[in-house]
Amino acid sequence: MAVEGLSINLATVRQQWTLTEACEACLRHGITAVAPWRDQIHKVGLDEAVRVIRGNGMTVTGVCRGGMFPSATSEGRQEAIDDNRRAIDEAVALGADCLVLVVGGLPQGSRDLGAARDMVADGIAAILPYARANRMPLAIEPLHPMYAADRACVNTLDQALDLCERLGEGVGVAVDVYHVWWDPNLASAIARAGRMGAILAHHICDWLVPTRDLLLDRGMMGDGVIDLRGIRGMIEAAGFLGLQECEIFSAETWWKRPGDEVLATVIDRFHAHCRT
Amino acid sequence: MAVEGLSINLATVRQQWTLTEACEACLRHGITAVAPWRDQIHKVGLDEAVRVIRGNGMTVTGVCRGGMFPSATSEGRQEAIDDNRRAIDEAVALGADCLVLVVGGLPQGSRDLGAARDMVADGIAAILPYARANRMPLAIEPLHPMYAADRACVNTLDQALDLCERLGEGVGVAVDVYHVWWDPNLASAIARAGRMGAILAHHICDWLVPTRDLLLDRGMMGDGVIDLRGIRGMIEAAGFLGLQECEIFSAETWWKRPGDEVLATVIDRFHAHCRT
Repeated sequence: MAVEGLSINLATVRQQWTLTEACEACLRHGITAVAPWRDQIHKVGLDEAVRVIRGNGMTVTGVCRGGMFPSATSEGRQEAIDDNRRAIDEAVALGADCLVLVVGGLPQGSRDLGAARDMVADGIAAILPYARANRMPLAIEPLHPMYAADRACVNTLDQALDLCERLGEGVGVAVDVYHVWWDPNLASAIARAGRMGAILAHHICDWLVPTRDLLLDRGMMGDGVIDLRGIRGMIEAAGFLGLQECEIFSAETWWKRPGDEVLATVIDRFHAHCRT
Repeated sequence: MAVEGLSINLATVRQQWTLTEACEACLRHGITAVAPWRDQIHKVGLDEAVRVIRGNGMTVTGVCRGGMFPSATSEGRQEAIDDNRRAIDEAVALGADCLVLVVGGLPQGSRDLGAARDMVADGIAAILPYARANRMPLAIEPLHPMYAADRACVNTLDQALDLCERLGEGVGVAVDVYHVWWDPNLASAIARAGRMGAILAHHICDWLVPTRDLLLDRGMMGDGVIDLRGIRGMIEAAGFLGLQECEIFSAETWWKRPGDEVLATVIDRFHAHCRT
């Protein structure tokens, strides 16, 4: 039976399966949408990824990830731009809804967040003509402030939307509840994103209490404190009716369980906690 | 030789020394300002804390901490209010500059951040007449968003300032670099706090990359990525010329070193990284 409204970010089962195995498992569970990571694509090869995904008529809610623009050197920044162009190619080949951008943090040795943020704006501006020419939307994903130093110096939805306004057509946002749930301005920022037509993706998981690791201790929906249904309501009210993409990095729990158990649990929890 | 401009939050040496021992050590190192935690005060007794601190003419840059207002029950919320009144008494007895408020997170079982934030506003409003009558400023400390669930649902400086405006005279903010350094609106928020005359304390430490624990892996100034001098410049430009209070929770590093080595390092790093 088809599961409507749900996509699986393949990082959720990255320890259990290759991209091919994960897609076939999703189809067995009635899930017809996925979001692969580039290392997963490269491991099986782009042709094989295209075969299993497009050959089965699957939706791709996003390719993870472009970004990582800041660098201490101009060579480093150019390499990032070149790599982002290849990421756009891969997203196009897979027919993805968007290329997700995790924009990058401080360059090595730097304490200058403002400069890093300028490098991000410059980097996106540099790839944007290519993205537009290929009709591939770029989704800036604001990351939780605990990743400001090492992963993304865009840390609130409003900050990402300011960037979108500055950059113009072809750039929007990925709203991941894990990163934005705490924001006192969340409701107004989501409404603003809706007015801009900027919501390109909606990622779900949960925030565990306690959280034992900054990166790899995300929770299954329902096991934490995020008001998933409430945030979904805001997103739908803002006009985004697209899929919810489940993305869980969980080194000590879900990455150790059988993949089929993980998918079955995601489906149960999606129905119990995430739909309006 | 006196160390000008520096205060030691006694949590920084909580594993090494009692409040009495820590104050005496600070004086040996030329540091005449401290900020004790209430458990440290209670362990030696308030009379003894007053004796060593006031008897030696020490400055108290803050008492940590009041707050923790949200609760699932009205009894729980009343207990928090009563306990905050006792915290005000202790801060007054010690001649503190302010009582620092870590406002509390979600009540057990709740996913409603908005309700928790209302409980915080109600709790501060309930103790504010007593604080005003005792001339004890209340310093709301916005905590990093990674503590929104379990420690403080006030997570940006602007959010704290909104609360100050709502509550009126007698409430300000403690600006801890660890909690606010990532904020894209930091400069404007500090300037706003200055215009409001709301800056009551400035706490320093550093953000380590990687950070291995959400609570107990704060860095020594200079070992991380925070632009300490830059933020100090903003704070001084906003009109706050008070002490910088070093507060480091470090279970695996600084709490395991001899207290005298910690204090000597704090003094060195303060001079090297924190003064404008």
